Amino acid sequence: MFTIDHLGIAVKSIAVAKGIYEKLGLEVSAEEILEGEQVKLVMVPVGESRLELLEPLGDTSPLARFLSKRGEGLHHISLHVTDLTAVVEKLKRDGVRMVSNEIKVGAGGHRYVFIHPSSAGGVLLELVESAD
Amino acid sequence: MFTIDHLGIAVKSIAVAKGIYEKLGLEVSAEEILEGEQVKLVMVPVGESRLELLEPLGDTSPLARFLSKRGEGLHHISLHVTDLTAVVEKLKRDGVRMVSNEIKVGAGGHRYVFIHPSSAGGVLLELVESAD
Repeated sequence: MFTIDHLGIAVKSIAVAKGIYEKLGLEVSAEEILEGEQVKLVMVPVGESRLELLEPLGDTSPLARFLSKRGEGLHHISLHVTDLTAVVEKLKRDGVRMVSNEIKVGAGGHRYVFIHPSSAGGVLLELVESAD
Repeated sequence: MFTIDHLGIAVKSIAVAKGIYEKLGLEVSAEEILEGEQVKLVMVPVGESRLELLEPLGDTSPLARFLSKRGEGLHHISLHVTDLTAVVEKLKRDGVRMVSNEIKVGAGGHRYVFIHPSSAGGVLLELVESAD
């Protein structure tokens, strides 16, 4: 039912941070820009998962605030689930704190939600369901 | 060639932190103790990977120092590789900074090495090769 969809890693510079993955012989995607989130990103496929290197587009990006507070490193863990609606309903019944209560829809049509780090051992935990 | 073997997550209390994964319906292993590392841990299998929740055994544990400095959250990303010796030789030629230069052998006979966060976008990156 669950797989690790991707790991979001906050970096100051994608150009620098992607070097280690290229040296390991892993494939690094072309850069994409997410205007809504004020980030640019590259994906590094690893088995059934991906590493997502995230760089802020400017100083007002929420990711820039994360970097100045926490430094570079893991930003979130994203788990792929097959029935997001049922999972979120159950978590709410169990009193789990969500970052926002409604399920959001991303650019590719995928649905996602974030569990608050205070309910997940300090980790920002995303649950994502594919569009298909 | 590569998969995500596991994600090490530093927590103050496994008993508390494992709750979110149980609520998601994921299986949580029994607790194991690693005396050498002064940690206890549980594993949460997710697809081909695992989440590893790590709790320090006492105040002198290196993990306790990590928690007091960084708080709860991701401690390391572990990638499974099939030919560790060749990969490490290449990384050294490329000038990548390793936490220690020799390959170590873990309890189950697996071989592992850590890439320093300064060479990996702020992430402590473990490379591990199975015993078989």
